[in-house]
Amino acid sequence: MTPRFDNISFLSDFGISDEFVGVVKSVIADIAPHVRVIDLVHEIAPFDVRAGSLALARCIPYVPQGVVLAIVDPGVGSSRRGVAISVAGGTGIFVGPDNGLLAAAIALAGGAETAVVLNNSEYQLAAPGNTFAGRDIFAPAAAYLCNGVPISELGEEIDTSLLLPGIVPLPRELDGGLQGEVTWVDRYGNCQLNISLDDIVEWGKQIRIVITNLATGEQVVRSLPVVDSFSKVAGGIALVVDSYGMLAICVDRGSAALELHLGPSDLVALTPDTAVKQPSATSVHIGRKN
Amino acid sequence: MTPRFDNISFLSDFGISDEFVGVVKSVIADIAPHVRVIDLVHEIAPFDVRAGSLALARCIPYVPQGVVLAIVDPGVGSSRRGVAISVAGGTGIFVGPDNGLLAAAIALAGGAETAVVLNNSEYQLAAPGNTFAGRDIFAPAAAYLCNGVPISELGEEIDTSLLLPGIVPLPRELDGGLQGEVTWVDRYGNCQLNISLDDIVEWGKQIRIVITNLATGEQVVRSLPVVDSFSKVAGGIALVVDSYGMLAICVDRGSAALELHLGPSDLVALTPDTAVKQPSATSVHIGRKN
Amino acid sequence: MTPRFDNISFLSDFGISDEFVGVVKSVIADIAPHVRVIDLVHEIAPFDVRAGSLALARCIPYVPQGVVLAIVDPGVGSSRRGVAISVAGGTGIFVGPDNGLLAAAIALAGGAETAVVLNNSEYQLAAPGNTFAGRDIFAPAAAYLCNGVPISELGEEIDTSLLLPGIVPLPRELDGGLQGEVTWVDRYGNCQLNISLDDIVEWGKQIRIVITNLATGEQVVRSLPVVDSFSKVAGGIALVVDSYGMLAICVDRGSAALELHLGPSDLVALTPDTAVKQPSATSVHIGRKN
Repeated sequence: MTPRFDNISFLSDFGISDEFVGVVKSVIADIAPHVRVIDLVHEIAPFDVRAGSLALARCIPYVPQGVVLAIVDPGVGSSRRGVAISVAGGTGIFVGPDNGLLAAAIALAGGAETAVVLNNSEYQLAAPGNTFAGRDIFAPAAAYLCNGVPISELGEEIDTSLLLPGIVPLPRELDGGLQGEVTWVDRYGNCQLNISLDDIVEWGKQIRIVITNLATGEQVVRSLPVVDSFSKVAGGIALVVDSYGMLAICVDRGSAALELHLGPSDLVALTPDTAVKQPSATSVHIGRKN
Repeated sequence: MTPRFDNISFLSDFGISDEFVGVVKSVIADIAPHVRVIDLVHEIAPFDVRAGSLALARCIPYVPQGVVLAIVDPGVGSSRRGVAISVAGGTGIFVGPDNGLLAAAIALAGGAETAVVLNNSEYQLAAPGNTFAGRDIFAPAAAYLCNGVPISELGEEIDTSLLLPGIVPLPRELDGGLQGEVTWVDRYGNCQLNISLDDIVEWGKQIRIVITNLATGEQVVRSLPVVDSFSKVAGGIALVVDSYGMLAICVDRGSAALELHLGPSDLVALTPDTAVKQPSATSVHIGRKN
Repeated sequence: MTPRFDNISFLSDFGISDEFVGVVKSVIADIAPHVRVIDLVHEIAPFDVRAGSLALARCIPYVPQGVVLAIVDPGVGSSRRGVAISVAGGTGIFVGPDNGLLAAAIALAGGAETAVVLNNSEYQLAAPGNTFAGRDIFAPAAAYLCNGVPISELGEEIDTSLLLPGIVPLPRELDGGLQGEVTWVDRYGNCQLNISLDDIVEWGKQIRIVITNLATGEQVVRSLPVVDSFSKVAGGIALVVDSYGMLAICVDRGSAALELHLGPSDLVALTPDTAVKQPSATSVHIGRKN
């Protein structure tokens, strides 16, 4: 059999304090010695399918041709299905649980073309328990696909329209603005929003944000400049156009998450800041207040 | 010289906050460029030989043919010996300190066949200090073995019966039950016991556990179902047959370790729960209490 | 084009909780599939150029021939330059920001021979934002260099004498002793100083240390033996000659950092301890105290 893929790009919530990732990579090395595994990230919070899905989507424009193995799988051992899904004329195959984790990434890769449920035990490891599908089901599937085993061998074909969709948080319109949310707080404390520069490109370069604490009802209001690098934040807080074209609330060499008590899923409303003279404004009337 | 092995499976307590792992892998890449290093896990608690030994044993059925490099080495630089130990007709070689770390894994691999103490300085790096045997002694040994250097070249042969045995915690019998202990708390808070499903298979599907706090003498008593997946824990706590066939105290999408204040080495006594109607029971008398 | 290098040794402050490292490695795998990336360390504290510089210098004697990719880059997107710097007759090339991070390592590698600023966008990824130079500029540069693209293709040559120097903390003389500082606290709590065994080799085997708390002015004074392995610390605290030939304040199987409240950059003064009989002393007068 002719090897078909040389790369497996691997994301999970396995963390690094246990040997889970190492065992999955051992199984792959044993079945498909020619394959390189690229660890995308393994510190997705335990069971956080949404965070895993968003991280995978951010990676997907950059992963090399081959198999994408993604495992954030709170339903392991339940009736949720393990699947393999081919995209882009078969030049890429996703392997993981059918729980929405893969959906956003597959959409970015052009959509699912063929899908099978991983129920052919010939391509699985026998195991004394069924709590580690990463080792026993997903890793072998990924490795055999790299070896050239056709996706149709791994199990029954299923209708791609019945795959579980992802939950992608979209911003919604709000009297003259947009209600968005924090999708990702990175290591540096930068808070990415689900609002892109394109969404606000006609609002000027100064934006009013309102952060609502859902528990207490308290609101924090700030006026932030929109800038294109951390270094232009200049001591305060700003909306930086990040490396994905999204707006991120950032502090230069500091943590916006700490400073504003922001975390994933927190709501942030954006409106143009009309009280500030906009660099792009051509006619601004500054009158008396009363 | 013909290369002999292509894989080094590597476990340590080096952590990832320093460059120790990277330097070991650099040394290997320099000596044996053809070798792939598989990181099993590096977050073993500092100096915790027992935890390292148990993690290595869990990995060993899955690592590919080649060298296993394991370093948890509180006695580095002392009289403890560095060793290489061949197993399975020479298809696998373990490299690490002779402090019990390798013992359980070697037993699982069929037992030690040949052992040498790593005292041939020709296959070591000269270094200004002797606190980093991973870099100066173990990594070169593993790399040269992969290159085809015979194990006998690395140092004097020693009697395999004199290798330090591991300390494997075995459960002990206890009036109608078993006294076990927690061997591993994983990232998700699942608490693996040193008691397998086989040990209690005739007890039915409901088990009484008694957790004793050694410091205060306090006891926590629970009755738990035995189930075969996290999803069947169904909101409470259960004994799950884990991916190694061992019993683990688990909470579905939560941490049993946090909920029950459990950690490695904590004692847990198991007995059949006769007060609960067992699914497998054929004759149960439910009488009045007095 | 003939591939020129097979290895990229990679250090950063990207951490492992996000997919930054995985994306950089994906970009490299895509451009230069033959290359192995060796992760040196990625848990350098965010923006800590000095710590990154010191870690890189500790690695550099061990990394294999090829490209060294180092990214701790608080000024990303600002006017700070991205550079590639060749050393050792072109057998090694450093890629990273020109902010002092690379300086100590390059000095250890024999000094900069040629340097270019990475301003040829043909060898960069187009991106919707300019906050992730690791992905868009540095990773492609490293990968193309491995593919055989000449360094001169990546951008304009710059004068190596104008590269930003590193800030290497040197000890200074102090009435009969040396004032040093903690350069590194490792995972085990060992505190490496910027003072080598050579610096104090004539002082005997017992050293008086004075740790000054800069905030409170309080001083801790200890007399420590100089030993050559952790196991000889023997229950207390000692100065261990570490694997780089430097003196490290260590506790056997414990954390000197915790015990002495020491962290990076803390000041430690060393003097010979004349009150203690030195093994190498030939004439010691033990008189009455008054």
